[in-house]
Amino acid sequence: MKQSPYFLRGRFWIESPTGTFLGQGRVVLLEHIRTYGSISAAARVMNMSYRQAWQLVNTMNSHSTAPLVESVTGGKGGGGAILTATGERAISLYYAVKQDFEQFLEQRSQQLDW
Amino acid sequence: MKQSPYFLRGRFWIESPTGTFLGQGRVVLLEHIRTYGSISAAARVMNMSYRQAWQLVNTMNSHSTAPLVESVTGGKGGGGAILTATGERAISLYYAVKQDFEQFLEQRSQQLDW
Repeated sequence: MKQSPYFLRGRFWIESPTGTFLGQGRVVLLEHIRTYGSISAAARVMNMSYRQAWQLVNTMNSHSTAPLVESVTGGKGGGGAILTATGERAISLYYAVKQDFEQFLEQRSQQLDW
Repeated sequence: MKQSPYFLRGRFWIESPTGTFLGQGRVVLLEHIRTYGSISAAARVMNMSYRQAWQLVNTMNSHSTAPLVESVTGGKGGGGAILTATGERAISLYYAVKQDFEQFLEQRSQQLDW
C-alpha cells in the first residue's frame, strides 16, 4: 500500500477509577515542581494561577496510590514542594505510554487507506 | 503483571498535509447529512449554526481528494446535500481507525504499571 500523505494525531490521558489522573499538562506541572521546588514558581512559569496549580496537584495526589508532590516546611527558602518518588514514577509512566501512543499513531498512519 | 484499575483514554483525528481533515464531530456531521439530506437539518440536530456546519463541510471537502458532500438542487425538497461515495469512504476510514485506536488504548491499559 502506498504511503498516504494523511496522518493521525491524538491525545491521551490516564484515568484512575475515580477521575482523570495524568495528562500532558499535569505532567509538565510535575516537571516544573521538580525543577523549581515550589508549586507557585511552577504555576508562574506555566502562566497558571497558584490556586489552579494547587488544585491540579491535589487532584493528582487524590487519584494516586501515594502523593506525587509533598510540601516541605522550613529551611532557607521558607518551605516549598518536592516531587516524591511516586511523582517521579508517574512522570516515567506517562512518557512510557506516550512513546507507545506515538508509535501507534505513526504506524497506523502508514496504513491509512486514503 | 496484575491488571491495574488505571486505564487510558484518548482522542484522535486525521490530518491532511494542509490541515485537520476528520475528527469525531466532523464524522457525526457527515452521518447526519447522510440521514437528513441537508446541511441545515444536520446542523440543527447537532445544535450548531448552519454557517458552522457549512464551514466544516467546506473544510473537509478542501482537505479531501474529492468532495465528501455535494449540494443537490431542484426536486421536491427544493435541494439539499448528499454524502458522496468519498464521504462514505471517509466515515468508514474514521471508524476503522477508531476501532484500532480503542484497541490500542485497551491493550496498553492492561499493561499499565501503576
